[in-house]
Amino acid sequence: MMGPAISMDQPAVQPRQGVLVHGGDLADAASLFPQAPGPWIDLSTGINPWPYPVPDLPGASWTRLPGKAAEAALLRAAADAYGVPDPALLAAAPGSQILIQTLPFLRLPGTVAILSPTYGEHAPAWERAGHQVSLIHTLPDPDKGPLPDVLVLVNPNNPDGRLIVPDILLRWQERLAARGGWLVVDEAFADLVPESSLAPYAGREGLVILRSFGKFFGLAGLRLGFLAAPVSLVQALTGRLGPWAVPGPALELGAMALADRPWQDRMRGQLAQARAGLDAILAGGGREIVGGTDLYRLIRLEDAPDLFTRLGQAAIWVRRFPDRPDWLRLGLPPDVAAMERLAGVLRL
Amino acid sequence: MMGPAISMDQPAVQPRQGVLVHGGDLADAASLFPQAPGPWIDLSTGINPWPYPVPDLPGASWTRLPGKAAEAALLRAAADAYGVPDPALLAAAPGSQILIQTLPFLRLPGTVAILSPTYGEHAPAWERAGHQVSLIHTLPDPDKGPLPDVLVLVNPNNPDGRLIVPDILLRWQERLAARGGWLVVDEAFADLVPESSLAPYAGREGLVILRSFGKFFGLAGLRLGFLAAPVSLVQALTGRLGPWAVPGPALELGAMALADRPWQDRMRGQLAQARAGLDAILAGGGREIVGGTDLYRLIRLEDAPDLFTRLGQAAIWVRRFPDRPDWLRLGLPPDVAAMERLAGVLRL
Repeated sequence: MMGPAISMDQPAVQPRQGVLVHGGDLADAASLFPQAPGPWIDLSTGINPWPYPVPDLPGASWTRLPGKAAEAALLRAAADAYGVPDPALLAAAPGSQILIQTLPFLRLPGTVAILSPTYGEHAPAWERAGHQVSLIHTLPDPDKGPLPDVLVLVNPNNPDGRLIVPDILLRWQERLAARGGWLVVDEAFADLVPESSLAPYAGREGLVILRSFGKFFGLAGLRLGFLAAPVSLVQALTGRLGPWAVPGPALELGAMALADRPWQDRMRGQLAQARAGLDAILAGGGREIVGGTDLYRLIRLEDAPDLFTRLGQAAIWVRRFPDRPDWLRLGLPPDVAAMERLAGVLRL
Repeated sequence: MMGPAISMDQPAVQPRQGVLVHGGDLADAASLFPQAPGPWIDLSTGINPWPYPVPDLPGASWTRLPGKAAEAALLRAAADAYGVPDPALLAAAPGSQILIQTLPFLRLPGTVAILSPTYGEHAPAWERAGHQVSLIHTLPDPDKGPLPDVLVLVNPNNPDGRLIVPDILLRWQERLAARGGWLVVDEAFADLVPESSLAPYAGREGLVILRSFGKFFGLAGLRLGFLAAPVSLVQALTGRLGPWAVPGPALELGAMALADRPWQDRMRGQLAQARAGLDAILAGGGREIVGGTDLYRLIRLEDAPDLFTRLGQAAIWVRRFPDRPDWLRLGLPPDVAAMERLAGVLRL
């Protein structure tokens, strides 16, 4: 895990022309492959294809202003599910994305190192707030060389699944906190590896954890995310978002799903099994499985652009990476038919 | 409507100890009047008690990332409903509150005049972003005296319903725009007086309009709001909020309700009638109806604190104002039983 000290003079993020590349919008797929025979199979995200069932929600969750009691219930359920010692160390937001957008404005501009490649929204968010962003490709020894003011990493990482153990991260947290810095750990996919989460250490100085509700629970449209951090930072963040930040339906559904541990345990098993099935299909044909989580796999192959095209022509939408043309990321096929359609294209 | 020039040395907002006062949370009511016989009647907000019916929403609106096509459909429906000339002049957000929170960060700190008394969240939002806030109590002649960098007003106003005609506002917009300033018009209750909205002028330099979906449509829990402004400001704002800012269910339901003009027309009639009924109950007993909109009425009376208590003891929750102890604001009673319970207390 250790590597050379951070070089702060690495070029920042690749120039962004307008919109970042994301998966999950089949309008993009249909416009790129207008001839593809629908219905599309969307494997372009890491969102669980077997969502937590949406019950009839109380009418008041739609009609009334979200109440303090409902928000407190959500934070308690989240603290329990994630292992955060105290709900006061948590803030809820309408999606973890808006936390990513807002966090950089909560400290003065400084140097930010982002362990890369990773989720593409972190770098522009820090740059937008005036920070000087460097992309680093290995995690250096925090005891050697210059430290950034903020280190940002996604754990487990998207797209390659790289996982850094808590001990190493806590050493970083200590070193950064000692100089007023932050360790920002985006745990968007940590539901799959709860033992790797830093949530039990939430509240430690300089430790900022982001959690995403929608991916593991398969409810990305709901928009629900959490920040776990020292109380002062939680308060600064909620002050920025203002009252009633989380819609009533998300408060209700989030509290319900986060409290449903049997569903979560069962789902972890189901996803692990589905991922093993996907790996079996992906193996061979000159493809290397680089890594991933139980919600997506990253493969490397020479003819990735060609495979992307063949998949698209078969109405299977996967994620490609402009600066890594040899990579493709695939989510879990939602059913046997999708599995077979995917296997059919991969066999060609 | 005209008055003395703005005095910039007026004291800013009253000191805020922690949380602002808002209506709409019956936990506050129950903790203040634990003996009150439930169920509570909540008249503490200006939210329509007859909500737009929530249909079964497509499962994908919960499970998938909100797509660009769904967002475009919402913005088209909003532009049509509000009379904004082009959807590109609109940004959607998860509640108008987060627009109020974010807007002040989109320009350098300067002087901000807020026409007061009004909705309590504007002043702290501008102060949070480092602006120097003055509360003004009459709208001066924009051709005389010093101008602020930003003028903020709510039209029609909350809580007193004061309405300023478009001509006067457009003169302010011109004067402010000429020096790079903004006129911010919070039209949270403008659905009730569409002819008074500045939405048809959206896109004019320096004109910033906020719209709230949840109040008129009775869906405050959904969290949906809009900003109408020149394209550059719309883009700056959406850049701050990031992708997928509006949840899928809000995109679906918002587009549906905003396109339903028959419901809107019928509802405007129903609310006007209900408001007339409320006025009839409120009249007399030393109470003056100061004003309001068809969603709430502001009354002034000597013994307002006493009436507040008697209402609370009868499990009717209304809005009071810490710095105006002679005021109470009441929303529309949702049914005949509520009407009668209210009338009973007022007759005492």
